[in-house]
Amino acid sequence: MTNDVDSKPLRCAVVGLGYWGPNLVRVLHEIPEAEVVYACDLEPKQLKKVGARYPVVSLTTDYDKILADDSVDAVLIATKIGSHHALAEAALKAGKHVFVEKPMAASSEQALELIELAERRGLTLMPGHTFLYSPPVDKCRELIQSGELGEIYFISMSRVNLGKHQPDVSVIWDLGPHDFSILGYWLEETPVRVSAICRSCIVESIPDVAFIDLEYPSGTIANVELSWLAPSKLRRTTIVGSRKMIVYDDTSNEPVRVFDSGVNTPDPATFGEFRITYRVGDILSPNIEAVEPLQSELADFCTAIRLGSKPRSSARLGLDVVELIEAIDASIQAAVAPASTLQVPV
Amino acid sequence: MTNDVDSKPLRCAVVGLGYWGPNLVRVLHEIPEAEVVYACDLEPKQLKKVGARYPVVSLTTDYDKILADDSVDAVLIATKIGSHHALAEAALKAGKHVFVEKPMAASSEQALELIELAERRGLTLMPGHTFLYSPPVDKCRELIQSGELGEIYFISMSRVNLGKHQPDVSVIWDLGPHDFSILGYWLEETPVRVSAICRSCIVESIPDVAFIDLEYPSGTIANVELSWLAPSKLRRTTIVGSRKMIVYDDTSNEPVRVFDSGVNTPDPATFGEFRITYRVGDILSPNIEAVEPLQSELADFCTAIRLGSKPRSSARLGLDVVELIEAIDASIQAAVAPASTLQVPV
Amino acid sequence: MTNDVDSKPLRCAVVGLGYWGPNLVRVLHEIPEAEVVYACDLEPKQLKKVGARYPVVSLTTDYDKILADDSVDAVLIATKIGSHHALAEAALKAGKHVFVEKPMAASSEQALELIELAERRGLTLMPGHTFLYSPPVDKCRELIQSGELGEIYFISMSRVNLGKHQPDVSVIWDLGPHDFSILGYWLEETPVRVSAICRSCIVESIPDVAFIDLEYPSGTIANVELSWLAPSKLRRTTIVGSRKMIVYDDTSNEPVRVFDSGVNTPDPATFGEFRITYRVGDILSPNIEAVEPLQSELADFCTAIRLGSKPRSSARLGLDVVELIEAIDASIQAAVAPASTLQVPV
Amino acid sequence: MTNDVDSKPLRCAVVGLGYWGPNLVRVLHEIPEAEVVYACDLEPKQLKKVGARYPVVSLTTDYDKILADDSVDAVLIATKIGSHHALAEAALKAGKHVFVEKPMAASSEQALELIELAERRGLTLMPGHTFLYSPPVDKCRELIQSGELGEIYFISMSRVNLGKHQPDVSVIWDLGPHDFSILGYWLEETPVRVSAICRSCIVESIPDVAFIDLEYPSGTIANVELSWLAPSKLRRTTIVGSRKMIVYDDTSNEPVRVFDSGVNTPDPATFGEFRITYRVGDILSPNIEAVEPLQSELADFCTAIRLGSKPRSSARLGLDVVELIEAIDASIQAAVAPASTLQVPV
Repeated sequence: MTNDVDSKPLRCAVVGLGYWGPNLVRVLHEIPEAEVVYACDLEPKQLKKVGARYPVVSLTTDYDKILADDSVDAVLIATKIGSHHALAEAALKAGKHVFVEKPMAASSEQALELIELAERRGLTLMPGHTFLYSPPVDKCRELIQSGELGEIYFISMSRVNLGKHQPDVSVIWDLGPHDFSILGYWLEETPVRVSAICRSCIVESIPDVAFIDLEYPSGTIANVELSWLAPSKLRRTTIVGSRKMIVYDDTSNEPVRVFDSGVNTPDPATFGEFRITYRVGDILSPNIEAVEPLQSELADFCTAIRLGSKPRSSARLGLDVVELIEAIDASIQAAVAPASTLQVPV
Repeated sequence: MTNDVDSKPLRCAVVGLGYWGPNLVRVLHEIPEAEVVYACDLEPKQLKKVGARYPVVSLTTDYDKILADDSVDAVLIATKIGSHHALAEAALKAGKHVFVEKPMAASSEQALELIELAERRGLTLMPGHTFLYSPPVDKCRELIQSGELGEIYFISMSRVNLGKHQPDVSVIWDLGPHDFSILGYWLEETPVRVSAICRSCIVESIPDVAFIDLEYPSGTIANVELSWLAPSKLRRTTIVGSRKMIVYDDTSNEPVRVFDSGVNTPDPATFGEFRITYRVGDILSPNIEAVEPLQSELADFCTAIRLGSKPRSSARLGLDVVELIEAIDASIQAAVAPASTLQVPV
Repeated sequence: MTNDVDSKPLRCAVVGLGYWGPNLVRVLHEIPEAEVVYACDLEPKQLKKVGARYPVVSLTTDYDKILADDSVDAVLIATKIGSHHALAEAALKAGKHVFVEKPMAASSEQALELIELAERRGLTLMPGHTFLYSPPVDKCRELIQSGELGEIYFISMSRVNLGKHQPDVSVIWDLGPHDFSILGYWLEETPVRVSAICRSCIVESIPDVAFIDLEYPSGTIANVELSWLAPSKLRRTTIVGSRKMIVYDDTSNEPVRVFDSGVNTPDPATFGEFRITYRVGDILSPNIEAVEPLQSELADFCTAIRLGSKPRSSARLGLDVVELIEAIDASIQAAVAPASTLQVPV
Repeated sequence: MTNDVDSKPLRCAVVGLGYWGPNLVRVLHEIPEAEVVYACDLEPKQLKKVGARYPVVSLTTDYDKILADDSVDAVLIATKIGSHHALAEAALKAGKHVFVEKPMAASSEQALELIELAERRGLTLMPGHTFLYSPPVDKCRELIQSGELGEIYFISMSRVNLGKHQPDVSVIWDLGPHDFSILGYWLEETPVRVSAICRSCIVESIPDVAFIDLEYPSGTIANVELSWLAPSKLRRTTIVGSRKMIVYDDTSNEPVRVFDSGVNTPDPATFGEFRITYRVGDILSPNIEAVEPLQSELADFCTAIRLGSKPRSSARLGLDVVELIEAIDASIQAAVAPASTLQVPV
């Protein structure tokens, strides 16, 4: 943790070179704040691919070798969820700063352990909630936090696609962290009530579709649809506020659309009557700069290390996400005794 | 209840000339099976409007006058939900066939009473679930019931719009009957489990947004989003089957789109491995004839009266819908003691 | 031509009750400034339909009867193009104000004759260019005329659909008047150069698809695509200005979209180099009130009669449109000796 | 020109490393049929970028060095249009096979010279009309050539975008080759008549918007809109046939949509009457495999060299494109004396 303007690039090791890890390697190469010194995976084939593109990177299947190298500043973990805790714990114990892909750990207990360990050692621990660095997500937060939308009545989110069934975790653990971290970033609160329904359509005991209801202390409610089974990709979020509304669609050329529409405050002239009138105004698609979120995210990781600052994607937020998923899982388990069972007359 | 091919048009009275009633008058005029002899409303202004366009129709504010007129075959009720039961009961007791707008009654007890009364008197009682007569809805049913979609994994529905807050009932009672009747028509089963979240954003104690989760005996799950608050009109339903998938969008020029996509059955060659592959095939928008659903619906009402047949929008289905809404309301009440409360560590 | 505030509704006769005429009858009934006293058509079947809905209207197949009735103030002509001139001329000679559907006449000579006749008699003559009263078209004009778009570089228009082949005129005479009147209204100039290509795909010698190029004195160029043959309805116009750009789509819920995009003025710092940079800004969909254009148009006709004012859809503009279509037809004829014939080496 | 199955990869040199050249380098690396031995550009900065990613490639600013190297089989030219002829000629004279970006040369005379030179030397000369290898374009050709669309009535194409003004050539020379080569590939004929309108909005004498009309021997007509100025990217082509119609949109997830719609053949029962009826049927979006066109294109180049076969993007087709552009330019010049000048009465 230094604050040295002229400091050299951080020396990083990337662990896990499956789907996402190679992106970490690429972006760390592209930003001036960092350099990749090690790439680590148990699969020699994956190592070879990375080596072909980045000959200067040392390839290894031996994680301990990285931990033993004092010149390594930080370890970035992009392995399966089940190994996050063990790998991060070892790295922190070896005095390395740690970036760990979302979700941060396989349980809130594990996540909390990592947070406490990092705090004790004075090291940066950052979960990879990349969407917090997406310019459209950030634009929405700005509109929410500035009060431009008014009170946030409710949020409806769909993140569905055909594909990417995971062998070890449900769609809630896989896709949910995106939406849950976004909600936390936007609303700056955590839900007080959670309920969910899900189904394991393809693989037994691995839910691949889920509908999740959330209720926040402020009164905001949210519905999140997650699925690996869908006719087409959908990344659509609607935010309904008392003043304005937003449609945020990550697949669109106009990712954020602001609707100046809503309910008018009742006219005193019609006091006593039930008369609600509506206001339909302009629709604005603000131009949003094209920045790769992963680049901003890894730059934030480097800054956090250098300045000892808290990254936007903080360990606290990472823990909130894991706790929320646990509560959702609990709600699903509890549904064996459902809140309301329909008695159908025969 | 006659079966006379050469019979004269049914003599109908329309009660309630607010938003929907005038459509009943118009369509009854357009179809050969019926004629409108009375239009009834407590508001003289509403009567006058109808009278201006249909001078042959007798206008009255006195419902009893209609019931006392022996030449009237059927009464069609398009009043507020709270008066459905009383008006329908009186008409049945006066020996009239009854068509009553959805939802059929304000409680399942009331609905059941009406059903029993109609059965005892040998009269037709039909709730106005117009969407069952919408050609796209019917096309979806055909694809589901023929097995072309395979097993129905899940259904996701959104029916949202800015506007039309009702002074007396929630969005669940107002918009829900559309989706719940469609689901019943498609799946031919009723949910075994229900849970919901809602919020009264604008008027106290009148929920204007709701997210409803349903679970059917076959395993199908469904999520229904209903709202009078939304940036733009959405009438989007996704049906995910094991063989094919459908997007049904009532606002689109191509209301039904069939996606020949899904998960492939695992390859024996990779037996033992976790390897799921996906199939992305053609997308088909079948041409769908443009028929006004209300016309088919009222023709079905006339046929049911003449032949004593069961209309597609049957009283039984109407009762199912009311029971489902009651279960949803119960689920919302029960949520004071939620299935899973999140304990956020401080 | 009176200016009497308390004046009675204008007494109108509608001639021609095919596709469009019944709309004139309906809207004249709806606006307070007018009433329909006669409906005239050679087909008794068409008369009967109108009579059924509007019992107070006198039905006749005898045009002369209308002209002889001194109580009739105005005649509205919605017949086939070939009869516009004769019917309008007779009405003007009988001292009636005349509204005639677009295009005003079958030749510029005929149109000019009508204009001169109306002027001599002090009567209002107005062609029915309804789109000039469409709120989105008006919004575009406002943005163009206020200078907000900057210099208008070019306009690209598509008006295509499957259907409505006319037996007597080409698609240029049928659909062209919409776009040509809109262009005249927006740009307030008439083209100096015209060229076109067309094809008679279905009926010999009746072009059903045409691509028309226009060049205006200000430098603006335009391309207009017209067709009765198309996979789907398209009403899309792009206006490219030096400051902003517009997409006007008559079939969209957001009919006018304003793009704050363009080319930046060159940076003096890079003077000497060829370096063009682009500006991509916000996109705005202004809310546009929903008003039926035909209502505004007929109200404007009534005002023009009462005040002796020039209606927005003026006879002069109607003549411009006919002249432009004649020039397009001439360009197509001249193309037997095309501007540039390709010599393909064998 | 050998036909050796076990042959080694072709040794290639890429000349011109601006916008497109690096893609040639990348794809040549990815396909087994070729390898990149040289990369050549006058700008050391551009060379350096390529060198960083492909250390095995020899970098040079000296084109002659490449020509002198007997181990080089083929030269791929991605420089500005003005230099195509000189570079290609030198390469052919040095016995190299040549791939040259579209348009093949700056004049048909130059293109013809290259063709004759290549033929004399028995070398492959191939222009880079990449879109001929795009799966959606190929799908359209299949539907056209198989007769499934029936007679091709007309084609309407838009290729517009904000950006990429070229300093040396018009939008017709820059974007036109895409659409003109596609039309040639689809229709297998060359236009007999050409006319066009254009405007130089931003840079004097460099047209940045053009509307081009084409007429083919078979009767098919086409309209092509090209522009570097547009509110949003548009790559939309409509093909209207006598049996079916296609919308091909290169920016869509469903790039080819087949509409089973059209005009019915007249009913003999209504013979004598003018009665055209329309058929609106299903819409199909065939699934189209995702293959990078450039990969197929360069593989075709390699095959053409090995087998002496004619590549799909043939030199003949490349010449046709250049001749068509010359005819368009001539049409624009001739328009000083336009086919039809509008005489506007004052």
